[in-house]
Amino acid sequence: MESGRQTPTRRQLMRAIGLLGGTAAIYQMMTTFGHAAETRFPGPPNLAGARKGASVVVLGAGLAGMLAAYELEKAGYKVRILEFQDRPGGRNWTLRGGDTYTELGGATQKVTFAKGNYFNPGPWRIPHHHKTLLHYCKAFGVALEPFIQLNHNTYIHNTDAFGGAPQRFRSLKADFEGGVAELLSKAMDQKGLDSPLTSEDLDRLKEALRGWGMLDKDMRYAKNLRSASHRGFDLPPGGGVGGAPQPSDLFPFDEVLKSGVWANMAFFMNEEFQTTMFQPVGGMDMIGKGFAKHVGHLITYNAKVTKLMQGKGGVTVTYTDTAKGVVSTAEADFCVCTIPLTVLSQIETNLSEKKTAAISSVPYSNSVKIGLEMKRRFWEQDYDIYGGHSFTNQEIGLISYPNNKFFDDGPAVLLGAFAGGPGGYRLGGMTPEERIQVALEQGSVFHPDSYRKEFLSGASVAWSRVPWVMGCCARWNEDTRKEHYQELVALEDRIVLAGEHASYLGCWMEGSLLSAIDAITRLHKRALEA
Amino acid sequence: MESGRQTPTRRQLMRAIGLLGGTAAIYQMMTTFGHAAETRFPGPPNLAGARKGASVVVLGAGLAGMLAAYELEKAGYKVRILEFQDRPGGRNWTLRGGDTYTELGGATQKVTFAKGNYFNPGPWRIPHHHKTLLHYCKAFGVALEPFIQLNHNTYIHNTDAFGGAPQRFRSLKADFEGGVAELLSKAMDQKGLDSPLTSEDLDRLKEALRGWGMLDKDMRYAKNLRSASHRGFDLPPGGGVGGAPQPSDLFPFDEVLKSGVWANMAFFMNEEFQTTMFQPVGGMDMIGKGFAKHVGHLITYNAKVTKLMQGKGGVTVTYTDTAKGVVSTAEADFCVCTIPLTVLSQIETNLSEKKTAAISSVPYSNSVKIGLEMKRRFWEQDYDIYGGHSFTNQEIGLISYPNNKFFDDGPAVLLGAFAGGPGGYRLGGMTPEERIQVALEQGSVFHPDSYRKEFLSGASVAWSRVPWVMGCCARWNEDTRKEHYQELVALEDRIVLAGEHASYLGCWMEGSLLSAIDAITRLHKRALEA
Repeated sequence: MESGRQTPTRRQLMRAIGLLGGTAAIYQMMTTFGHAAETRFPGPPNLAGARKGASVVVLGAGLAGMLAAYELEKAGYKVRILEFQDRPGGRNWTLRGGDTYTELGGATQKVTFAKGNYFNPGPWRIPHHHKTLLHYCKAFGVALEPFIQLNHNTYIHNTDAFGGAPQRFRSLKADFEGGVAELLSKAMDQKGLDSPLTSEDLDRLKEALRGWGMLDKDMRYAKNLRSASHRGFDLPPGGGVGGAPQPSDLFPFDEVLKSGVWANMAFFMNEEFQTTMFQPVGGMDMIGKGFAKHVGHLITYNAKVTKLMQGKGGVTVTYTDTAKGVVSTAEADFCVCTIPLTVLSQIETNLSEKKTAAISSVPYSNSVKIGLEMKRRFWEQDYDIYGGHSFTNQEIGLISYPNNKFFDDGPAVLLGAFAGGPGGYRLGGMTPEERIQVALEQGSVFHPDSYRKEFLSGASVAWSRVPWVMGCCARWNEDTRKEHYQELVALEDRIVLAGEHASYLGCWMEGSLLSAIDAITRLHKRALEA
Repeated sequence: MESGRQTPTRRQLMRAIGLLGGTAAIYQMMTTFGHAAETRFPGPPNLAGARKGASVVVLGAGLAGMLAAYELEKAGYKVRILEFQDRPGGRNWTLRGGDTYTELGGATQKVTFAKGNYFNPGPWRIPHHHKTLLHYCKAFGVALEPFIQLNHNTYIHNTDAFGGAPQRFRSLKADFEGGVAELLSKAMDQKGLDSPLTSEDLDRLKEALRGWGMLDKDMRYAKNLRSASHRGFDLPPGGGVGGAPQPSDLFPFDEVLKSGVWANMAFFMNEEFQTTMFQPVGGMDMIGKGFAKHVGHLITYNAKVTKLMQGKGGVTVTYTDTAKGVVSTAEADFCVCTIPLTVLSQIETNLSEKKTAAISSVPYSNSVKIGLEMKRRFWEQDYDIYGGHSFTNQEIGLISYPNNKFFDDGPAVLLGAFAGGPGGYRLGGMTPEERIQVALEQGSVFHPDSYRKEFLSGASVAWSRVPWVMGCCARWNEDTRKEHYQELVALEDRIVLAGEHASYLGCWMEGSLLSAIDAITRLHKRALEA
C-alpha cells in the first residue's frame, strides 16, 4: 500500500488539524477531503430563463432522452421526442408473458411466462449511490425493492477447479482468506516483513490476520469449529441431545486458487456492485414507464430517424413512420440526440468530421441475457439460495436467482445467462432455441437434479441482434477516451449527444441520466446565448 | 491452511473418484461429503401413534413452547400451554406505538412511535439456513422480506483510529485487503514463502493477490482508479464533459489496522450472519402471532408457574393467575418446559440434583437494545445508507438502519444500540431516559448533523431487567457444555426442557425450534413406552 510513501502528507495534515481542532476538526477534514462527492447529482438541473418558444427535438425515448425532455419542458422549452420503438424506455426493458420480440435475422420469440413473472434483458440492478436514478424513481413513483447482489450461499464454478464441481462461495471465500492469512503470518514469523510497519503495527496485523482469517492459536488455518463458522459445517449446530456441530474439511488451497474465487470477491467489492442494491418492483421497465407518465405526450413512436442536419436556422430531423411508411421532418432550434452510437453512425448528418469519427470510434459490448422460467423455486427450496448469482467460467457467465416473491410456490424466472466476450458472440450467433439449450446445459452444473426437470420456457436477448441498438452498451477504453470522448460529448452548434455512451458510467442508467443533465445544462447555456 | 497436511487424503480420493467416474462422481462426492447437512431440519417431526388421551403441559408460549404444542396436538396429544405473559411469542417480541412496557425496577415506558413503525427488542433477523423457522413461517403465513445485513456503505467507528472519525466500511475493507495483498506479494518476492505450494500455485496466488487486492502492475496498492473502484472515488465517474473520475487517497495502513475492520469483515463471514437474511414484514412478533393462530386456543395467559413436580402418575404444575391472584394446578402425563433457565432455576421442582445443577449453570447475556424514532430517514437521504449496521467500539456497539419502507418520507425507527458486555451492564443500570441519552450521544458520531436534530422518541429493553427472562439468552461455554449440556437436555422421566438454552444455536429462534423438535421427539418415544 502507499501509506509508507504518499500518505504521510495527508496523515501529517490530519494530525496537525487534530492538534489544532481536535477530533471534530479531523472528522470535518475526513469528510470534506475524503469522500465528499458520493454522487455527481446535485439535484435536478437549473435551466432557468429559457427563451420563450425555443424548441428542442430529442432523439430517443430511452432514459436519457426522456429525462432531457422532462427537464427541458419543465424549463419552458417546446419539446418533442422521436422514438424508433413503439414503447418508451429503450434498453430499460422488461419481457413478460404475452410479449413478442423479433431480433435481427428475423427470429421471433413469444414469451410465455406466467403472469407476474418477468425477465429484464437490459439493466437489472441499481446501486445505492446512483442518486440521479433514485431521485427520479422517487419523483415518478417507481417503487424499489432490494436486489440481493451478494449471497454467500451461491456457487462458484470453474471447469479447472475441483474437477468441475461447483462450491459454495462462502466456503471458497473462507478458505481463500484463511490461506492468505496463514501465509502472511508465516512470512512475518519466518523471515520478517520488509515494510514500514512498527512492531506495534505488526502485532495488530497478526491479531487482524488471526481474527479475519479464522486462524487457530498457532496461526494456522485448520479444520475446526472456528473455520467451519465461516466456511460451513459438516453438521451445523442443532438443538437437543445431538446438537453439537461438526467442522468441515478445508478445500485444498491450490483448488481454491484455481477456482478464481478472488475475482468474485473483488467483483463484490466493485463500487457499482456493493450492497445495498435495488430493483423496481414488477420489472425494470417500471422506470421507463414512470418517466413516460411525465413525457409520454411528447413522444412520437415508430419514428425511424434517417437524417440529422443543422444550419443557421435550426435543426432538421428526417424520420420515417415505420408503421405507416410515411417520411416526415421535425424542425427545432436544438437537438438532444440520444441515439446509440451503433445506430447514429449509420444516420446521415452534417456533423463535423471529428464528431463523426468519435461517433464511429466506440465499440459496443455484445452481452446475451437469457431468462428461464422454472416450475418451482428449487434453488430456494432445495439449495437455500435466495437471490444472488452463481458464477461459472462457462459461456453463460452466471445464473442469477430472482429477488422478488421469495418463498413463493409458483413458477419463477431466473436469469440463465449473462454472457459476454466470446461466449456472447457464440450465443448471439445461435437461434433463440439453441441459446436456451446451452443455458440449460451449462446452468445444470449448479442444480443438476432440477434444472432441466423444472424448466418451462425461456426467452433470450442477444444485444448484438437487437434492431434498435445492435449492441449492449458503449465500451470505451483508455485510448478512445483520450482521443474521442471530449469530442463526442461537446456541443456542436445546436446538437448535443447524450446517453450512457456520453458518460464515464457506461452501461449504467445513471450514466445516461448524468450525461443528459450535463448535455441539457450546456444546451440551455447555448440557447441563452442564441 | 491445512491443505498441505490433512487434505491430501481427501484430494487423492477426489482424484481417484474422478478417474473412475469423472466429474459427475466428484460432484457427487463433494456434495455428499462436503456439506451434506445444510440444516438440521428434516421436516416436521413424525410423532405417529400417540396414545389416545395422553396429555402434555407446555410451560411457556415462546416459539419452542408453541411449536411443541402445535406438533404434539397435531399428533393427538391433549395439550395446554401455561404462559406468564399476556401475549404469545416470548422473546419474539415487537414494540409499537401505544405499547407499554414495565421493566424490573419499575420503570415504565410508553412507546410513541408512529403507526407502522416498530422496534424488535429481541430477535431481529433470520439466516437463510434456519430452515425450521423458515418452514413454520411459510406454514403459518408469516411474510418475510430481505434484511440488509451487509451494507458496504455503512460506517466503522473506533475511538482509537482516525482520531475518532468513522470511515465507510467499503474504504476500510478495500484498504485492508489491498494492504494484506501487497504485504504477502512482497514477502513472496523478497524472501520466498515457506509453503508447500508449487511454482504454478504461487503464480496463481500472485494473480489472485493482484486481482483481489486491486494491486497495480508492480503489485503495489496505490492511489489510482483501480483502488478507488473498491474504496470509493474522490469524484465518482459521471456524465458529459466533466465525467472523468478521480481516485481517493488511501488510508494509512496502521489506522486501518487500528480500526479493527477485520473484525467486521469476519463478522459478515460468520455463517449465522451471511447473506441472504430475512425479517418478517411488519415486525418480528408476526412470527409469534403466526404460531399463536394455531395454538392460541391452548394457551392460558398470565400464568406464573411456581412449582413443577412429577411422580408416577404424571406431572403437576402449580401456577398463579397474575391477573386474578388465584392459584391453580395443571395436571398432565408429561411436561415440556421452555421456561428460561434464569426463571426456572427459581421455581420449586423435584428434578434431580444433576438437572437442577445444570439449570443453574448457564449464565445469560445482558444485551440492551434501543429503538430511536427519527423524523426522517437522514441516513438514506443524506448518507446513502439503506439498511445494514454502522459499528462502533462505544457501548452502543452499533446502530442499525431499518430494512423496510426504503425511500419513505415519514419518521422511521433505527436501532440505536445493541449493547453487550460491560456496555450492556452500564446501560442496563440506567433509567430508560438515560439510556436514550447515551444512545443519542454515542450514535451521533455517525451522523453528527442529524442525530439529535431528527430525534423524536425512543424505547429501550435491557434484557437483564425483563421480568419474565432476566437476561437475554443462554451463553454456554466449552466447560459448561461438557459438564451440563447433556444433563440439561436429557428427558427426566416425564419432563423435558426445550428452548434456545437447550441447543447449540443459543440466542437464535432456530435453536429454540430445533430444541423443541428434539425434545418432543424424545418425549413421544417415552410416551409410547409409558
